Parts: sequence; structure tokens; C-alpha cells
Amino acid sequence: MGKINVVQMGLGPIGNQITRFLAERKNFNIVGAIDADEKKVGQDVGTLAGLPEPIGVKVSKDIKSVLKNNNVDAVILTTTSSLASIREQIINLLEYGVNIVTTCEELSYPWLTNPEISREIDEKAKSKKVSVLATGVNPGFLMDFLPLSLTSVCRSVDKITVERIQDATFRRIPFQKKIGAGLSIKEFHEKVEKGILRHVGLTESIHMIASRLGWKLEKTEDIITPVIATRLIKTNNMTIQPGDVAGVQQVGRGIVDGQVAINLVFRASVGEPESRDSIIIEGTPRIESTIHGGVNGDIATCAIMVNSIPVVVHSRPGLRTMSDIETLSFFK
Amino acid sequence: MGKINVVQMGLGPIGNQITRFLAERKNFNIVGAIDADEKKVGQDVGTLAGLPEPIGVKVSKDIKSVLKNNNVDAVILTTTSSLASIREQIINLLEYGVNIVTTCEELSYPWLTNPEISREIDEKAKSKKVSVLATGVNPGFLMDFLPLSLTSVCRSVDKITVERIQDATFRRIPFQKKIGAGLSIKEFHEKVEKGILRHVGLTESIHMIASRLGWKLEKTEDIITPVIATRLIKTNNMTIQPGDVAGVQQVGRGIVDGQVAINLVFRASVGEPESRDSIIIEGTPRIESTIHGGVNGDIATCAIMVNSIPVVVHSRPGLRTMSDIETLSFFK
Repeated sequence: MGKINVVQMGLGPIGNQITRFLAERKNFNIVGAIDADEKKVGQDVGTLAGLPEPIGVKVSKDIKSVLKNNNVDAVILTTTSSLASIREQIINLLEYGVNIVTTCEELSYPWLTNPEISREIDEKAKSKKVSVLATGVNPGFLMDFLPLSLTSVCRSVDKITVERIQDATFRRIPFQKKIGAGLSIKEFHEKVEKGILRHVGLTESIHMIASRLGWKLEKTEDIITPVIATRLIKTNNMTIQPGDVAGVQQVGRGIVDGQVAINLVFRASVGEPESRDSIIIEGTPRIESTIHGGVNGDIATCAIMVNSIPVVVHSRPGLRTMSDIETLSFFK
Repeated sequence: MGKINVVQMGLGPIGNQITRFLAERKNFNIVGAIDADEKKVGQDVGTLAGLPEPIGVKVSKDIKSVLKNNNVDAVILTTTSSLASIREQIINLLEYGVNIVTTCEELSYPWLTNPEISREIDEKAKSKKVSVLATGVNPGFLMDFLPLSLTSVCRSVDKITVERIQDATFRRIPFQKKIGAGLSIKEFHEKVEKGILRHVGLTESIHMIASRLGWKLEKTEDIITPVIATRLIKTNNMTIQPGDVAGVQQVGRGIVDGQVAINLVFRASVGEPESRDSIIIEGTPRIESTIHGGVNGDIATCAIMVNSIPVVVHSRPGLRTMSDIETLSFFK
């Protein structure tokens, strides 16, 4: 295939990691980079990402000048998790007739939570004959695409359970902090109250699964609880007292016919005995699948963003989701 | 979605099982049934499949009369594993402007083995604005689609190993016979020589993976060896002497840059200690996935055929494969 011209928009940690992944591949030209942060504007996007050499593309804050002149195939949009915030950026970008791949979790399956924004983006993309896809490891893969795909060999499906269990002992400090490790129970609940300790996407994954299976959801739940240390836990970075918080458990449930038909469990804590991603499909046949050690989320989200680009560029126009996109894979 | 009008062509064991699966679903009308066997012609397709009630559709051998009058959306084609044999049937069916899903293993990824037939089918389907997909559990899912999909969260991939290991102790007698259980080593090799003891599809799975990953295959291998009983094995159906054949191991290998980059192992034997389907992706990140107990192949192939129909009906026209088809799943 020919090279694909991409523009990166949003150069935080995820955007910078995507720059590094793109630089390794022979299929992409980074032809532009956009960020609103004045400190980043004017810097080389490769240098900003920590590459040994600059790549010759400077960060701009002017969408118009970047998209007008570069024969852009796709924009890689990594600015926010919030659909309400990203809506205007997407509508604005679509005006230039570019395809979009984004990590925006709330866009991974927005048809039930935000039907109006979904339709607006879908219609705009169709009118420009391009497509928009939100993807990532979770939402986008482990708790929705993968269980859905496994059901394709089923004669019937009654219930789907996914468990993503992560031992955070050897993870980066920001990840340990993100899951609340080391907090008191009171501090944990304060952070949950403020909405700053929360994985975004369980509801979207539930909606994607239910819609695709033809299940009518009566209710969804998304419940966050602390994982409490039952012993003294010491890592290189922190000491957690018994009774304090070692991490978080977040459970998403989809209720169908009065029963829990979709049960998504995300648990990450320091001292968790085993990391794994498990899918159990209760149906005919029953399928029990485990990814031993789990999938490294930092790599996986950036990788699936990059790997999705050529498929999105050639996809049916409109707002696509991981439940209606052609097969994704690595490629070189 | 509206109901989909399907015609079944080929009413052997697989076709009959698909009839039973279709009858359970509310999304399909069986509007016709075709078989060349005079003993089946005139029978009700439901009765033939062992359903408690006839469904009011009689088996015909006249393709034209069945396809002309029934507003057919898709034909479910389960006649043969051989692409050379099925080619004419497909071209003939496409003339009526119908989509086709088929279990034909050699059509699961025919672009490298049979580029001319592939192009012919692709062009004919495009000219009629319909699509053709060959699928099944293997080839079509476990050894190609699933590992490919798992690589979509990878930054790099070096090698893919898939092992499908089946304990045949409690399987049907025809399956036990198919894998050579109870034969002497000499008899086993005679059957392999004659080409009647062979799983079709490893080469196609290797081609699908390599093409999609952008790997240049130097060579493929497909090697069949007997699994020898090391002890006396007794089942309800047979007794296998030590030194006789308990089953088969078939290994498909794809060589890239002088190394085995794709390694597909299918082993089925009476007395096999554990059934499982395992995928190991050596790359970044490394992914090790196991389906405990393995996927029941008899159900899975018929289920994925049925589940693929609505996606194929709305798919991009042409010859599709599991490496370029929109997400499949169960639905009700």
C-alpha cells in the first residue's frame, strides 16, 4: 500500500507514544502536528516525543494551516476522553475531508449515550466520504471487540463476563496513583466523588456488546470500590498500610431481562496476585479465554490506534465503531 | 434488521446442522434448498435436518428455479472443500446477484494459491454488487482471524504460534475415524498418501496471516504425522494398542527470512491429556491466549456461517476473507 499521510492532534503522553510508534513504521508520513499548548507550539514533534532525531514537522496550533496544505489522509486525535469536548474538534476536522482515529473513550460506542452527537458526526463524515473511529485497548478491544468476536462461533449466548485484572506492583508511579494506591479509604472516596478516579468506557463497552448481540438493556451500572490492603505492602515507590487502599475495582453491569447479562470487571491494585484478561461466554459452546499476564495497556492503546489507520482510511464512510469495522491487525 | 432470505445449497451433515441453527433464529427465512442428490430432492429441508416439523421448503436440484423466484439475499454453500470444484457453482450463483457464504476451506484465503480463480470470483461479485465469504472455525477463525485480531494491539510482531489440541476420547466415532484413531501406522500413512486423512486449511491460514501482516513468505509446509499410542487406550467405541495410531498431528509452517514465523499445530487424538486452543504472539507486547477446553468445532463452524450472513449481505462487494470483513458476532 502507499504511504498514509497523518496529522497528530493532541501531544500528551499518548500522542507522543504514538509518534514513536509511527516513526518505526514505513507506512506513514507524519505531515503535521497540532496542540493548543503554547509550550509545545514550534517544537519538532519527533523531539517532543523523545525521538533521537527531529522529524522535520513543527507543532502548530492552527488547524487550518496544517490541514489545508498537506494532502492529509487521517488525523490521530488524542485530546480528551469526553465526547462533549471532542465533538467540536471532530466536526471541525471533518470539514477538511479527513478520516479520524481517536482514543476518545466516550466515542467508542456513543450511539446509546449520545445519539444526537453520534448522528451529527456520522452524517458529517458520510457527507465528506470519510470515517471516524474511536479505539484503544479498553474500551475498544479487550472488553468489547474481543468478546464480541468470540461469540461469532456461538450458536447461542446467555451471558458475557470479562475480567481485566492487573497487578500494579511494577507499574509506573502515575499508574499507581491513578488507581488510588496508597490513599486512605476516605481520600479514595473523595477522589471518586470528584470524578477523578474513574476508568472511562465500561458503559460504552456494555452498549457495544448489547447492541451488537441484539440484547435490550434495561439498565447499566458502573460501580467503583477500593481494593483494601490486607497486609503491609512495600514497593520501590510506596508503602501501603493494612486497611489503606491498594487499588481500585470498577464493575460495569448490563441488565437484560432482569439478569446481569454483561459483567465487566476491571481491577488494578498493588499486590494483586495475578495479571490476566479473561473472557467467559456462557452459551453454546461455552468459551473461556484467558490472556495470561494481561495485555500491556500503555502499548496496546497506541498500537491499535496506529494499526487501525489504514483500515479506517479505506472504510465505509461514517461513524464506525469496533463493532462494525473491517479486521484490524498489526502490519509492517 | 429485516429478515434475510437464504437458500441452502449442499445438505450434508454441515448443511443440515446449519438448517437447525437457522430455524432457531428469528432473523432468517429459508426460502429454498438445493442438493444434487436424488434421494434428497423433494424432501422438506427441515425434515431432512431432523427438525420436529417440516418448514415448508422442498429440496430441489434446479438452481435456476430456486434463485429466480425467491428474492434471495444469500446462499449458504456447503458442498465441497475444493476451490476447483466450487468455482463453477459460485460463478453460476453470482449470476443471480446473490451473496454467498461458504465453508469451502480452500476459498478462505485463495489469493496466493489460486490468484486467477480469486480474481474471477472477486470481479464477478463486484459486477453484481454482492460479496462472497468463506468462513468456519478452522480455517476462518481460530488459526487466522483470532491471532490476526490479537496482533492489532501489538507494536511489533515477530512470530505467531497457534496450537489447536483436541482430546478425541469423547468425540463422535466419525471424528475418531477421521483423525485415524485405531489404525496401524502403515494404514495411517496409506490414508495420508491417498489424501483422505488431511485437515484442509493450514496453508490458507498461513497465507491470510502473512498477507495481512505484510510478511513475505518464502515457503510454506504442511506436515502430517501420526500420534502413536504409548499405552493401551480403551474408549466406549474402540481399543487402541500401544504402537498403533491414537490420532493425527498436522503442522503448518510459514517461513519468513529463513525462520519459522508462523507455526500452526493441529493435534487431535484419543487420550490427549488436554483440549485447548492457544495463541502465542511473540512481539511487543507478547500475548499468550488460551481457550480452555478448546472451541467445539462442529458447533462453531455452523454458528460462524450463520452469524456471518448479515455482515456479508451488507459488506463491500467482492471476494471477502476473514481478514477484511466487518466485525462478526452472535446476534439474536
